This record gives sequence, C-alpha cells and structure tokens, in this order.
Amino acid sequence: MAQNIYDNLDFFSGYSQLPRQVHGLAGAPEWPTLRAMFPHVAGKRAVDLGCGFGWVSRWLVENGAKTVLGVDLSENMISRAREVTTDTAIDYRIADIETIELPEAAFDFAFSSLTFHYVRDFDRLARMIHRSLTTGSHFVFSIEHPIFMAATRPHWIEDEDGRKTWPVNRYAIEGERRTDWFAKGVVKYHRKIGTTLNVLMRAGFNIEAVDEFAPSVEQVRENPALEDELERPMMLLVSSSR
Amino acid sequence: MAQNIYDNLDFFSGYSQLPRQVHGLAGAPEWPTLRAMFPHVAGKRAVDLGCGFGWVSRWLVENGAKTVLGVDLSENMISRAREVTTDTAIDYRIADIETIELPEAAFDFAFSSLTFHYVRDFDRLARMIHRSLTTGSHFVFSIEHPIFMAATRPHWIEDEDGRKTWPVNRYAIEGERRTDWFAKGVVKYHRKIGTTLNVLMRAGFNIEAVDEFAPSVEQVRENPALEDELERPMMLLVSSSR
Repeated sequence: MAQNIYDNLDFFSGYSQLPRQVHGLAGAPEWPTLRAMFPHVAGKRAVDLGCGFGWVSRWLVENGAKTVLGVDLSENMISRAREVTTDTAIDYRIADIETIELPEAAFDFAFSSLTFHYVRDFDRLARMIHRSLTTGSHFVFSIEHPIFMAATRPHWIEDEDGRKTWPVNRYAIEGERRTDWFAKGVVKYHRKIGTTLNVLMRAGFNIEAVDEFAPSVEQVRENPALEDELERPMMLLVSSSR
Repeated sequence: MAQNIYDNLDFFSGYSQLPRQVHGLAGAPEWPTLRAMFPHVAGKRAVDLGCGFGWVSRWLVENGAKTVLGVDLSENMISRAREVTTDTAIDYRIADIETIELPEAAFDFAFSSLTFHYVRDFDRLARMIHRSLTTGSHFVFSIEHPIFMAATRPHWIEDEDGRKTWPVNRYAIEGERRTDWFAKGVVKYHRKIGTTLNVLMRAGFNIEAVDEFAPSVEQVRENPALEDELERPMMLLVSSSR
C-alpha cells in the first residue's frame, strides 16, 4: 500500500494551508496551462486520480462532464471533498492509486494533478488507465518535475553570482526519494522524463503535448515569489490520447 | 548565419581530441541507445545534419542505406569527412543547418547528433525536415540536454554532503547561452524539453521515444569517469516519425 501521508495530522494541517488548497484552482499557477490541455469535457465520463478536495472534479461537472469519479487515498481529503460538493454527478471514493483497478472502457477522460510522483509502479498504472479509457479519449496529468525531485538535498542554493540555483544529482538513479515536507519522510518516486513518456507510449498513449510550468509575466507581477520558478522546472504537464 | 565555431582553430584542435572524434562511434557512450532508436536503414535515403567527420554517415551506408547526404557548416569537418570516406553513396556538403532547405520528400530517414542546440530557430528546422521526409519515415536526433545547458554557470558543484551536483537556473528563460568550451563564447540556444517536443509535434511528427542518456553498469566499469553522468542528464535523445 502507498504511504498515506495525507492522513498524517501534521502533514494535513500544513498541506491544507497551501494556496492551492485554500484558494483552489485560482491558487494553482499551473492551472491555466493544464486546463488548456483538456479536451472538450462536456458529456464526458471523467476520472480524477488523486482528487484531493475535489477542486478539479467540481470544475469538470461545472463544465458539463456527465460524471466524475474522484479517487483519493486520504480519508481526510475525501471527507472534505464530499462536504463541499453537492453535485450528484461526482462520486468520491477512497482508494489507493497504486493498486486501483478501474472498469474497462468506462471513461472518456482521465486526469491527475500532482499525484503520480507518489506512485511506485507507474507502468502498471498507465496500462490500467489505458484499459479504462475509450478510444479517442484523453489523459492529462501533472507531476512534480523530475528535476525538482531528483536530488538528495532538494532545496535552493546560490551560484557564485548569488543567483538562485536548483541542485540536480542522482538524476539517472530512479526510485524512492524521501523528503521532509510538512512531515518527515514523505516518500516519492523519481523517474526520468524519458521514462514517464516512454511508459505512456508503451501503454498505448500518443503524446500530444509536454509542458514544464513557468509563470507568466502577469503571474509574477501578481505574485513576485513565483519568479523563482523561472530558474527551475517545478512541474511536468503531459497531455496524451488513446 | 550560425556561429562557425568548428572552423575556429583553437576550438577545432581541442574538439578533434575528444574521444568521440578520435575513436568515432566507440567513443560516444550514447551511441548504443541512439542506434537502438534507428529504423531499419537498408535501402533508405538518409540525411545526417551536422555530420562532422561523417562517423554516422559512414555507419549508415555500411548498414545498407542507399544514399546519405552529410551536411555540416564546418569546412574542416567536411574536408576530413571526405578524406576518410571512399563510399560514393555519401555526398558531403558544407551548409548552415540554420538556413538549409532540403528538397521535398527526398529522404526516408533524418538524423542529427549533438547539433540542434547550436540552432536558433528549431521551429523552422523541424518543419523543413518534415517536408523533406517521406510518409512513414523516421527522424532521430540527440541534443545537449536542456538541464545540462540552462545555467549561467554550467559546471560541477558539490552539495553539503560533497556529492557531485549539477546547477540549474534560468531553465524557463529560453534563448542564447554563451559558454567557454575549447574556445571562448561558444553560442548555444537553450529550449525547454517541452518546447523541443512540442515543436516536433506541431511540425507533424509523432514522438516515438525519449531518452536521457545514462551510462550502463558496463560502461561505468570500462570508463569510471562516466559515473558522473548518473548525477545529471547530459544528452536528450528523441525518436519521432512522420
């Protein structure tokens, strides 16, 4: 079973204060780029893997999705999602993405935000998602960028000119990474960009677009702290189809 | 016109001593991975963009390619390539990849090794290559990895544990990079991984495989210095088709 860090009280109370949890999609600077990768969702049966508080699940039904299955390992997240959702087109379930089996050809759109870097076996997951989708459907997801999570000491440093710099090491050594983020020993799984894309293609998906989130000039003007994200790639956004 | 650093005497004399120039494909550790991306080349009309001394051009005809057009900006490189080549199926020409126009549907396989990071306008180049290829053909290339070339000070540093670490900054700021490599002020052009892949897809190519070269256990045993390349991604290898 995957580590259930989101039901760790220290983690959850810290995590819940993140802008993207307090403000939802408006607090997620990559959301405009991610949303631009979506197919037309009206009438679609969607699955939201690692749905958290259900921000995207709700956006999907508000934009015409026929049904949404929102899945998350965390009871805390699913409880909150159910509390704030009134639309009966969304079904929230507690389940482990590492082992979940979705029904075959049951969905027209699969989505996941910042979840798959917690998954050990992405190969199994990609093949399972491919089976669960109908022909012509889309699969869009974001993950922590491999460059963001590869190093043993992933924190800002300065170069000799004092410029904010992100350290990279162990890039080719894939597998477990443990970091302290709201709680000690949060477990993530590092994969090279090539590995993530090749696993998708071997599962039968066509790559449609690859984006590495960087803030726009307007976003930096509104939130100057985002300027740091011009220095390093923090998130990898992938659009694919089957 | 692109910078012609390969005809700078200091650069050329240093560059010519690199293992991959002295030993050819056996001195290029990424060659086995790159070659594994090739289609069946027998009977194909191939183009080798940035052919250098012609190592791959010669490999292609030795493996059955019908014709090979080898193109390079450097008179030094093309002179040497012509000197060491006897096969009349190879045509070497001096031309600038930045502006070259190949005839339409004239090739079945396009290849390039470690050249496109010198090209300012990859969008133009990708569309031109697409036009020059027949339907069903392949386009395989390597470039310096964007992570390798993004930083203003691209050299090894150490993290607080003394681990060899590669610095990343300015990743989202695409464009010119000047570095000193055998000569001062070698001009390269940084693009994000997402940009390179999206430019290809918009030009009409399907991505087939993406690899970030890392040495095998055997390669590290034979050449222990290669172990550093487990810490950072140095080269990006892309296979695509039209």
